[in-house]
Amino acid sequence: MSTALLTDHYELTMLQAALRSGAAHRRAVFEVFARHLPGGRRYGVVAGTGRVLDELERFRFGDEEIAFLREHRVVDDDTLAFLSEYRFSGDIYGYREGEAYFPASPILIVEGTFAEAVLLETLILSIMNHDCAIASAASRMTNAAGKRPIIEMGSRRTHEQAAVATARAAYIAGFASTSNLMAGHLYGIPTAGTAAHAFTLLHDSERAAFEAQIASFGAETTLLVDTYDVAEAVRTAVELAGPRLGAVRIDSGDLAAAAQEVREQLDSLGAFDTRIVVTSDLDEYAIAALAAAPVDGYGVGTSVATGSGVPTAALVYKLVARETATGKLEAVAKRSVGKPSRGGRKEAYRLIDRSGHADTELITTSGLIPEDAIPLIRPLMIDGEVVGREPLPAARARHAEAVSLLPLEALHLGRGYAAIPTEFA
Amino acid sequence: MSTALLTDHYELTMLQAALRSGAAHRRAVFEVFARHLPGGRRYGVVAGTGRVLDELERFRFGDEEIAFLREHRVVDDDTLAFLSEYRFSGDIYGYREGEAYFPASPILIVEGTFAEAVLLETLILSIMNHDCAIASAASRMTNAAGKRPIIEMGSRRTHEQAAVATARAAYIAGFASTSNLMAGHLYGIPTAGTAAHAFTLLHDSERAAFEAQIASFGAETTLLVDTYDVAEAVRTAVELAGPRLGAVRIDSGDLAAAAQEVREQLDSLGAFDTRIVVTSDLDEYAIAALAAAPVDGYGVGTSVATGSGVPTAALVYKLVARETATGKLEAVAKRSVGKPSRGGRKEAYRLIDRSGHADTELITTSGLIPEDAIPLIRPLMIDGEVVGREPLPAARARHAEAVSLLPLEALHLGRGYAAIPTEFA
Repeated sequence: MSTALLTDHYELTMLQAALRSGAAHRRAVFEVFARHLPGGRRYGVVAGTGRVLDELERFRFGDEEIAFLREHRVVDDDTLAFLSEYRFSGDIYGYREGEAYFPASPILIVEGTFAEAVLLETLILSIMNHDCAIASAASRMTNAAGKRPIIEMGSRRTHEQAAVATARAAYIAGFASTSNLMAGHLYGIPTAGTAAHAFTLLHDSERAAFEAQIASFGAETTLLVDTYDVAEAVRTAVELAGPRLGAVRIDSGDLAAAAQEVREQLDSLGAFDTRIVVTSDLDEYAIAALAAAPVDGYGVGTSVATGSGVPTAALVYKLVARETATGKLEAVAKRSVGKPSRGGRKEAYRLIDRSGHADTELITTSGLIPEDAIPLIRPLMIDGEVVGREPLPAARARHAEAVSLLPLEALHLGRGYAAIPTEFA
Repeated sequence: MSTALLTDHYELTMLQAALRSGAAHRRAVFEVFARHLPGGRRYGVVAGTGRVLDELERFRFGDEEIAFLREHRVVDDDTLAFLSEYRFSGDIYGYREGEAYFPASPILIVEGTFAEAVLLETLILSIMNHDCAIASAASRMTNAAGKRPIIEMGSRRTHEQAAVATARAAYIAGFASTSNLMAGHLYGIPTAGTAAHAFTLLHDSERAAFEAQIASFGAETTLLVDTYDVAEAVRTAVELAGPRLGAVRIDSGDLAAAAQEVREQLDSLGAFDTRIVVTSDLDEYAIAALAAAPVDGYGVGTSVATGSGVPTAALVYKLVARETATGKLEAVAKRSVGKPSRGGRKEAYRLIDRSGHADTELITTSGLIPEDAIPLIRPLMIDGEVVGREPLPAARARHAEAVSLLPLEALHLGRGYAAIPTEFA
């Protein structure tokens, strides 16, 4: 299915006017960056780049799309002729998925003619504003959880397709699995889940429900124990499944206190290896508060799917350079009040201090390559062909490494400034 | 494309265990409701129902979906056999789109066997949690804007498919148009937009950019005037387009002050009919604060696409009744701490007081129909066939009427309690 109409009306009217003025064919450089990290976050996490590459391959104006644009007189016939032949033939560079970013980091750079690059603004920003917001929130949660695994289970709290992208972004940021089957199908992310309260309520008793679940999935399953009385449910669960019961899930109440009681009860029943999974409106703060509780895993829904208070990453797509009438590439930037932009095609490096930690995000237009620096910008698409596709586990590993290189302050959950300063050279 | 995998893993494992226990074939009633209105909102707005009906028609486990589930051993062969034949054959009732709702309002009721109804939980909640959150926020914005039109332009701030649903939900709640072309194509929503700062920066001067836009779209176009200096831009705009210039757009700075200055300047230049459109991180509070400013229209992006602080509607899908072993339909409800639920299949009515305003949301399991009450629940799907589809303008008109019936307190933007109480009979 074509992605071409996932685009703002004005991208096409700009194209029409620029085709008329002749400026449409000027070479242009657009950059995706965040002026600030919303929510007082210490770092952002790049995600969505792989989806951008996938969706650009389907960014074509076919008969159906052209017919709509013609019928609604969105643009004129010359512009429709251009669109029907449209195929992005330029270059895209950017930070790779899983990498950390900071204010002004040029996480995606699109180079082509103005005509071909301006059309991609909406789709690229939609994908990256969503996926970076999710990954940035998810990264805080995996930091807070330490070695304990987190299941992403927020599908029901967000748009049905955003749910699939949520699972993908959370997986990059270190989540262990997802409840979302489409994410398993499309991206190979492990899927997980056993039962909801409805399953217990369906049966004539909690005992009958547990029996049914164990009969079908074995003693290794996870039983949900808070439909009626938790202590009674745990007693029944171990009675039916024996000490090999895989896990119990608690989905309400004071989770720290409940986990403590359930752990003691499980141990007293000899179910020493039965794990405790907790869910119920968890976010990074709640996870951190459970660090000392006897919890073996978390399920996180609403907060990860909504970016934990920051549902969009405040990324913008700005023209930073374009060809002049004389054929020279010239830096440009608007001067709108309160919306700082810097012209010129950037390179970006992360400078590492003697302790091995990142200490500066260096953004440069000089062309000079600093020493002891990690180059952050890699080719993703050259002459319209994808060159930067990579498997999801690579992005996940990069995230883990990128976070490990940040100064410890980056892991503080409170509001503050970026963990390292951005400098311009 | 099948929507069947837009589903949580545990819906399928519950199905497997219930098929094994035999309980899967019990009749069941699930209800979608909100325990509270998040964000201290006074009312919610129903949206997404039409999308639910569309997507349920594509909720089929085809060869591709079955192959994925088999390969990953999500469920056993008996369950796969059930799924490959699956087609929802039950009934769905609910509030119609555009209607207001309150805590506990049963905005969607799904009746069928447990097996066929439980599978729909994730998809239904994804759609309705998203769309209701957007419509509920958008409604506050259209209330604040009064007769001034609002363009929805948040596509770039949310997932690319959520963007399309955002335009639809905002339109139901009274937005005039959208920037999103796919929403125009799929739903017939008017689309709008002219140019971004990049268009001005592309040209060698602002004058050249304005000339190009006017040459292509005529004097009736909307010119963006804040790329460099607003007063200079307005002067150039009227010089080039004449007093018939359609509109100017201001996208930065103190919008009230800027609009006042631009209005005076336009009038001094004889451009009395040139409209002023303002954009730049507007939400319902900013719109309300601009009520006295000489503004003719608003463009709203981030805040509408993210639900203005409430990106998900806190709707749940709960089993409220199911068949017993003896074939009787019995009310059920979990007793989990802090998560109140009421068993039994509900009816809902809005009671109207003598002044003609709504004063109570009445939820009843009695079967009695109160006097002077608006029945809220209508059939949407009967025996698996859609019976409740309606054109989008009908939902939009219903929203306007539903809001007009609410007590005035419902329009307060501050945090508070629901505008009318929910009573149970």
